[in-house]
Amino acid sequence: MEPIGKRRWAIAEGYIPPESMAGADRALLSHEAACILNANEREARIEITILFADREPAGPYRITVPAQRTLHLRFNDLTDPASIPAGTDYASVFESDVPVVVQHTRLDSRQAENALMTTIAWPAAD
Amino acid sequence: MEPIGKRRWAIAEGYIPPESMAGADRALLSHEAACILNANEREARIEITILFADREPAGPYRITVPAQRTLHLRFNDLTDPASIPAGTDYASVFESDVPVVVQHTRLDSRQAENALMTTIAWPAAD
Amino acid sequence: MEPIGKRRWAIAEGYIPPESMAGADRALLSHEAACILNANEREARIEITILFADREPAGPYRITVPAQRTLHLRFNDLTDPASIPAGTDYASVFESDVPVVVQHTRLDSRQAENALMTTIAWPAAD
Amino acid sequence: MEPIGKRRWAIAEGYIPPESMAGADRALLSHEAACILNANEREARIEITILFADREPAGPYRITVPAQRTLHLRFNDLTDPASIPAGTDYASVFESDVPVVVQHTRLDSRQAENALMTTIAWPAAD
Repeated sequence: MEPIGKRRWAIAEGYIPPESMAGADRALLSHEAACILNANEREARIEITILFADREPAGPYRITVPAQRTLHLRFNDLTDPASIPAGTDYASVFESDVPVVVQHTRLDSRQAENALMTTIAWPAAD
Repeated sequence: MEPIGKRRWAIAEGYIPPESMAGADRALLSHEAACILNANEREARIEITILFADREPAGPYRITVPAQRTLHLRFNDLTDPASIPAGTDYASVFESDVPVVVQHTRLDSRQAENALMTTIAWPAAD
Repeated sequence: MEPIGKRRWAIAEGYIPPESMAGADRALLSHEAACILNANEREARIEITILFADREPAGPYRITVPAQRTLHLRFNDLTDPASIPAGTDYASVFESDVPVVVQHTRLDSRQAENALMTTIAWPAAD
Repeated sequence: MEPIGKRRWAIAEGYIPPESMAGADRALLSHEAACILNANEREARIEITILFADREPAGPYRITVPAQRTLHLRFNDLTDPASIPAGTDYASVFESDVPVVVQHTRLDSRQAENALMTTIAWPAAD
């Protein structure tokens, strides 16, 4: 399959809801995800930078997505160099060594009934 | 009507919720859809490849969309060459012989109140 | 303000939920909307064609959006040449005589708690 | 980090829900936001114009986003030159002196369970 996507993406929205419904399993925990599609024949090495409202950017966070695989990365799961605080506005920039596609999804289960939202991320130049 | 769209699309997000609310009819079953618009004067023949987090891609799934029609395809309904397992992260790539438009929608009725999300898919080159 | 947008747009998703919660006022009635922004100095004249899964397209539906105004058009409100049936898959194509921006939104209040989804529409050539 | 984004954006959808659930804190108040990412080395100065269905545009609203920061601007919080009335259809245009990325998000908590929607905004020319 030919390469699909871009090497650089941005998501201007970002907020990990600070609570989840009682008894939520992992699937229903409040979370925010960057769904990454790597249609290439080789692994994608990606660096993520997190921008905040009132302090210096954090990162780079380094992840890999194997060839011809998808990774639905939860921002909640990033810990190195530092966890992203919940209940805090942020944005993110992705820089990959091969073209990928990035889609942004949030599941908010602060209340008894979950809410969802998704959008294609912003494809930066290249 | 002139052709509208692209021949190749990708959706990086994909997840069929594994449960639905009690007593849901087909309209309210948890599902994930690719809404495909074929504004051409002739049928669109489309091959879909499904990519996963940790195993080889599946497909091609072959569908057709008649001329000047729309197909709201539920990933849940794909069975050949194999069903897409529920509760599993996936992504999808669409390759059509004529230009089409693809939009991604999920209805999640795991709980008593359904949640919705939608986005335009990623238009790959061509 | 300079013109913003495109003359031709498509929305591949379309479905007017056939019920609404008890006692819903107009704001909370289940509906599907095309939000149209006309930033031009003159009125936009727009023709909408509705495509279905299994019958001939309907239209054109003719609407106007005044100069420097927005119209949040509910598909539910279209009646000429024919209403769009609820509970039916459809798609839509917009052709305007001046550039506009189109965004697709659904409010689904079939249940006690409403669900929302939105996406930028697909900007067809021109 | 290189500049990312465009200098001009539009959001055709806009509606601040006129109520919120009982006891909502700021996080759960009904609101509509433009999430703005400024990846530049210098501050972004942005002018926002609000367009309505049936009256003259309002603005410009002037905001700034510091270098390498994100601002999740709530339309509810705009007051100068005038507040945006709740329960009213509107659209918005953003003009920045440096490239930025804009994403549109609504949290609707008119009912006991909140609903969410998001989309990338429309990147106007430049």
